Amino acid sequence: MMRSSPATPAEGIAAGITEPECLVDIERVRANVTRMAHKAARSDVAFRPHFKTHQSAAIGGIFREHRPAGIAVSSPGMARYFADAGFEDITIALPLNPRLIRELDELAGRVTLGLLLDGPAAADALTSLANPVRVWVEVDTGQGRTGMAWDDVPGIVALAGRVRAATGRPVAGLLTHAGHSYAAGSAQRVRGIHAEVVGRMNLLAEEVRTAEGARPLISVGDTPCCCLVDDLSGVDEVRPGNFVFFDVTQLSIGSCAPGDIALAVACPVIGVYPGRGEIALHGGAVHLSKDSLEWHGERIFGLLGEPGGDVLGEPDPRSRVIALSQEHAVARVPDAGRWFVGDVTLVFPAHSCLTAEQYGSYLAVTGERIPRYRR
Amino acid sequence: MMRSSPATPAEGIAAGITEPECLVDIERVRANVTRMAHKAARSDVAFRPHFKTHQSAAIGGIFREHRPAGIAVSSPGMARYFADAGFEDITIALPLNPRLIRELDELAGRVTLGLLLDGPAAADALTSLANPVRVWVEVDTGQGRTGMAWDDVPGIVALAGRVRAATGRPVAGLLTHAGHSYAAGSAQRVRGIHAEVVGRMNLLAEEVRTAEGARPLISVGDTPCCCLVDDLSGVDEVRPGNFVFFDVTQLSIGSCAPGDIALAVACPVIGVYPGRGEIALHGGAVHLSKDSLEWHGERIFGLLGEPGGDVLGEPDPRSRVIALSQEHAVARVPDAGRWFVGDVTLVFPAHSCLTAEQYGSYLAVTGERIPRYRR
Repeated sequence: MMRSSPATPAEGIAAGITEPECLVDIERVRANVTRMAHKAARSDVAFRPHFKTHQSAAIGGIFREHRPAGIAVSSPGMARYFADAGFEDITIALPLNPRLIRELDELAGRVTLGLLLDGPAAADALTSLANPVRVWVEVDTGQGRTGMAWDDVPGIVALAGRVRAATGRPVAGLLTHAGHSYAAGSAQRVRGIHAEVVGRMNLLAEEVRTAEGARPLISVGDTPCCCLVDDLSGVDEVRPGNFVFFDVTQLSIGSCAPGDIALAVACPVIGVYPGRGEIALHGGAVHLSKDSLEWHGERIFGLLGEPGGDVLGEPDPRSRVIALSQEHAVARVPDAGRWFVGDVTLVFPAHSCLTAEQYGSYLAVTGERIPRYRR
Repeated sequence: MMRSSPATPAEGIAAGITEPECLVDIERVRANVTRMAHKAARSDVAFRPHFKTHQSAAIGGIFREHRPAGIAVSSPGMARYFADAGFEDITIALPLNPRLIRELDELAGRVTLGLLLDGPAAADALTSLANPVRVWVEVDTGQGRTGMAWDDVPGIVALAGRVRAATGRPVAGLLTHAGHSYAAGSAQRVRGIHAEVVGRMNLLAEEVRTAEGARPLISVGDTPCCCLVDDLSGVDEVRPGNFVFFDVTQLSIGSCAPGDIALAVACPVIGVYPGRGEIALHGGAVHLSKDSLEWHGERIFGLLGEPGGDVLGEPDPRSRVIALSQEHAVARVPDAGRWFVGDVTLVFPAHSCLTAEQYGSYLAVTGERIPRYRR
């Protein structure tokens, strides 16, 4: 916490802050990426990081040092952005939207494009593609979001055949996102989910191999499983995304240590209420996103941390953002009377992917501006 | 619901939709604005609409027809945008952030600028302003966000004196946002909160008049109170914002009818799961915001509606968005088997202010592109 007047040298990161800024600690990003790339290599699985978290060509460059097999993104616009930045193998990890078939065909002419099928309905659209694509069948292994239900074995096998008929090429693989790992509640249960998912996917891959002659690849990827499981073998590729920054949700799951979190929002203090034990920040849902998590029995939007030097420091588990409106946050802090209007604090958000999405660029803690893709 | 292939004439609004788009029904906006402007005029209170909801000069033009006393915004950037669009009286309805004093002084040279003080700490910063400003003391009348506690009468009176000392002009007024009206639970209780707030603010205005000689103005404004109270007299100005679009939260409070909601997000259907009674949409937290509300005992992110013709239609209370990730939504629908991948549905969001913030422009249901301010 700082008591100095604005812009004194002691403020470090905070010195230039006048309004909420999305700060990124590139050294932490580098360490997070290296750790995951090494684990994938050790496990002998392809590394296809999901770039929806950072959406930045500059941060993508850090991954490139580890020669990823390719990348995943979540929209054709994001795919175009990274194709322009030189990425040549891109999976759009969202079920095929037939309304985008022209945009997708154009992309398929520029890069090795992977598409997801969620069921037979969209398979027909594949016949209108002039350029070759790699088609993955999305499998729902328990999250209940998108994908063919994992126990619909005949449906998944039939869809693999339909992909071959529509494209003239065998299905590239089976892909799943075990997003239910976020609610697992313990590291042991996250590992249990991963084991179950790998088992289900291998069973399905074997069924498709029997029917189609060729064994489809298996792609999995969610940050909790990829962080908490030591050996990722048993699949062909992993697609984690959030680990590049981490956040308080991942901290609460146990995917990272406090000092691994590489993104925080610098927020000016605009109100101090010692009687309530609270402070108000300029920094609302439009700067942090409205995502939240359960933290020691309480619904919170993030934890505070102190700016200082040119590193992000660590979140203080006692200082919680407890309310969020459009541009205001209210935080409960251990000693509200020590804060001053005009101070700057950091908010480590609940969900870094959604926080980052609120900005057109990041500010590196070392002062550089880092552009990112914006819809 | 539609079963046609993409882009057939029957689709109306949906015809050109390939990815999530933020649709606005300008005729409904016009009706919502007219209703509120007439109520303010009838009540003989100044109308200072909060433009943080729409953040669009074009939509601001619709308000202009009713000659509002001025506008409210929530950041200096937004104030500059509307100053450029010709608005001459702007209150920044967020407690003064001393780090922005230079930007604020520049604005004060261009428009009649209103600033909020949240306590004595920021009052000193006023002395460095070269241009005159109107200073409001923010009062917390029960929300527990920002403002001086309403029962700290000596503190509020002292702050009024301090404003006069710092600026050489009496305090402009006392301002409050009764945001606790959102959780009131019934129209009657919303009216009760409004009556209590008006009572507290008049009591304080009288105390300030006694001490300072001049009676400060009273500014209130939240959409539930301004919609559910018939006669807004008893204050000097009202500052509602959300009513321009409304949303499912306002519908659940009773502030509007289903056919008043003027904003919805068009989302392509990317998955259909008759066995689960659910469909998946391309349209996630980055298109809707992660805000939610309690709807008949369930936490939801919005209601679905059918696109058709060039009006938004009404939300279907039986079709709920029950899960939201970065780019996906899952909706529970009455008859999932009637949907097809490639259909387009509308999502009426929980909170239109935060949804609108996710876009650089709106798409009018009549086809025009409407730009908006973007940080």
